[in-house]
Amino acid sequence: MRKVYLDNAATTPLLSEVSEAMIPYLGEVFGNPSSLHDWGDTAREAVEAARAQVAQLIGADAEEIIFTGSGTESNNFAIKGLALAQQTKGKHVVVSAIEHFSVLHSARTMEKWGFELSLVPVDKYGVVDPEDVRKSLRKDTVLVSVMHANGEVGTIEPIQEIARITRENNVVFHTDAVAATGTLPVDIKELGIDALSLAGNQFYGPKGVGALWLRRGVRIMPLLDGGVQEGGRRAGTENVPAIVGLGKAAELAATNIAARLKHLTPLRDHLLTELPSKIEHVLITGHPQNRLPGHASFCIEFIEGESMLMMLNNQGVAVSSGSACTSKALKASHILIAMGIPHELAQGSLLFSFGMDSTLEDVDYVLEVLPPIVDRLRQMSPLYSKFIKTSKGGK
Amino acid sequence: MRKVYLDNAATTPLLSEVSEAMIPYLGEVFGNPSSLHDWGDTAREAVEAARAQVAQLIGADAEEIIFTGSGTESNNFAIKGLALAQQTKGKHVVVSAIEHFSVLHSARTMEKWGFELSLVPVDKYGVVDPEDVRKSLRKDTVLVSVMHANGEVGTIEPIQEIARITRENNVVFHTDAVAATGTLPVDIKELGIDALSLAGNQFYGPKGVGALWLRRGVRIMPLLDGGVQEGGRRAGTENVPAIVGLGKAAELAATNIAARLKHLTPLRDHLLTELPSKIEHVLITGHPQNRLPGHASFCIEFIEGESMLMMLNNQGVAVSSGSACTSKALKASHILIAMGIPHELAQGSLLFSFGMDSTLEDVDYVLEVLPPIVDRLRQMSPLYSKFIKTSKGGK
Repeated sequence: MRKVYLDNAATTPLLSEVSEAMIPYLGEVFGNPSSLHDWGDTAREAVEAARAQVAQLIGADAEEIIFTGSGTESNNFAIKGLALAQQTKGKHVVVSAIEHFSVLHSARTMEKWGFELSLVPVDKYGVVDPEDVRKSLRKDTVLVSVMHANGEVGTIEPIQEIARITRENNVVFHTDAVAATGTLPVDIKELGIDALSLAGNQFYGPKGVGALWLRRGVRIMPLLDGGVQEGGRRAGTENVPAIVGLGKAAELAATNIAARLKHLTPLRDHLLTELPSKIEHVLITGHPQNRLPGHASFCIEFIEGESMLMMLNNQGVAVSSGSACTSKALKASHILIAMGIPHELAQGSLLFSFGMDSTLEDVDYVLEVLPPIVDRLRQMSPLYSKFIKTSKGGK
Repeated sequence: MRKVYLDNAATTPLLSEVSEAMIPYLGEVFGNPSSLHDWGDTAREAVEAARAQVAQLIGADAEEIIFTGSGTESNNFAIKGLALAQQTKGKHVVVSAIEHFSVLHSARTMEKWGFELSLVPVDKYGVVDPEDVRKSLRKDTVLVSVMHANGEVGTIEPIQEIARITRENNVVFHTDAVAATGTLPVDIKELGIDALSLAGNQFYGPKGVGALWLRRGVRIMPLLDGGVQEGGRRAGTENVPAIVGLGKAAELAATNIAARLKHLTPLRDHLLTELPSKIEHVLITGHPQNRLPGHASFCIEFIEGESMLMMLNNQGVAVSSGSACTSKALKASHILIAMGIPHELAQGSLLFSFGMDSTLEDVDYVLEVLPPIVDRLRQMSPLYSKFIKTSKGGK
């Protein structure tokens, strides 16, 4: 059977250059970067080279990069660490309603710790209006976090415009760029932001590593206390092989970003155009144009996303229904709900995320196997029977 | 030049079986364990197999194992998460004075958050008296944390006895077993504890992964909010290759623990016996017998540890002066100070930690190259000149 992996938003495969760069650090080069001898020096040099590679991908200085264990940790660190470091100034935090749970739940934790939280709404495409951010600001606002691009509906947010507003108001602005970095050009100077999260496994790098970029001079409270690693900001023995892999992935992304856009965009556009012509009652979710290049997401009416996942999997196709972090919870996505999509329709969410291995033939295969799956599931769907009856009755 | 790595306390090399087990997960088997398709299933099964392997090493149930990104994260999670989860019961935490900074500084952070902290002292060998733990307990004590074995001076603590006291008093007891697990037999049922931290890179497994064992029914507050990974207790995409490596390392440790003891103990004992006979004014730090099998630590009077590290490194020998996490800070170890060792003497700390690659010839090489290094450094040491003058004057 054909095997088609279209779930790159959940995790990408590693590029062979990345795993090849990592493997020596699982073998001979095993030192602890904090050790004061040759074994330590070699490991430390590898970590610092990776730091420079990651910095270069986003136009930052190497010393502003803090390595973490995941995008989730970067987001927790940003929200909790930046809020706590500024609590003498104020205790109000603003995040958008469509943030990843690692941002949203971190902000909820801050509420438990005495902070106030404002959620900025989004429009039907999942776009934050910068003016809504402006309206949410108060004298005691110390942190705004709006994601760069949403991994579930693909929508790209107006980060530059929001950053202009937070700068005018002297409020620290963090963006979760986990879904964007390595796929879109991301430049912290152009964006004008203060902090940015990224994760290796979103752009052909390894799992188990992320980074927080933090503008020089912005204070943060450590999430992990202990040794003096990462300039005293993130304790714990550095995950050297994963950091080296992240560095290599960053270098490759910086070099190939234009080629990635060129490869992914036609795949996305082909599916976004063709799927609604093959299947009735389909809603494209997220912004029709201003979205991640390899990202096509839909709600298929009258069906549960999970059943489609299972049946697509039986045909060798891997996709997801919402983010990998939430799909196991089997709840309607808070992102779709925030976009005003009714709960029932939100249950039929399907997300195709292409990668550099994906081809037009993969898209055509999906266009071939998905419509009969939808037909079969709709035949079993009480909601669909009801709809058919009603619409026949209406004729 | 001979290359002799005697810094296994900083990090161990990976066993080839471990890296071989990991490598497929850097290649074809790249799925996200949370994904609901074959790629996800394969990754999830690998994570669950590793969970069982880690559980078996310490005599626990698989579902009680929570994977983390490091021993440091496990310790932060334990101290902060266990204290916060019980704060309605009380806000008093007890830790020993010789804990790793990831425990000690986490406890200090809890102080900032309104908890009270008691530090239990140690004797000159770094041993905690269980009766001192008993005396430190109050009605509002919610957590005690005493390490299983100290990675810097090798001393093994009376965990079973302390656990008996905490159980009698209905207080949660966590032990940082990062230095002990995989080297000593560690069985959570025998120990009678409630929570235990371990880390892969301490027993021939990978960096970037640790685990917290938490007795079923003990409540904990997540440190990383977000997705529902690890039973909702630790968010973030699982570091599958590192987790698989940790599982393999745990399996190998369980099988080979007796052989490890048998290999390491004579190396340690040879150095502990011979070094003081080759160099004057040497103090063995830590307990003379009841210490980690591959661990020999000393204070060499009148010299700074760092100079010895550098000169040993020039002879191809890797050792450390205190823990890798603190050595870069170049302060006298809080552990040695807590043991009553004077500040000046504590500066001359040297730690040899043997591994399964180490040989008696390595020890003999150290015994050959270290004495002339010490001689040379003492000739340059104002402290030593002063001592010689004084002792001559005293004659």
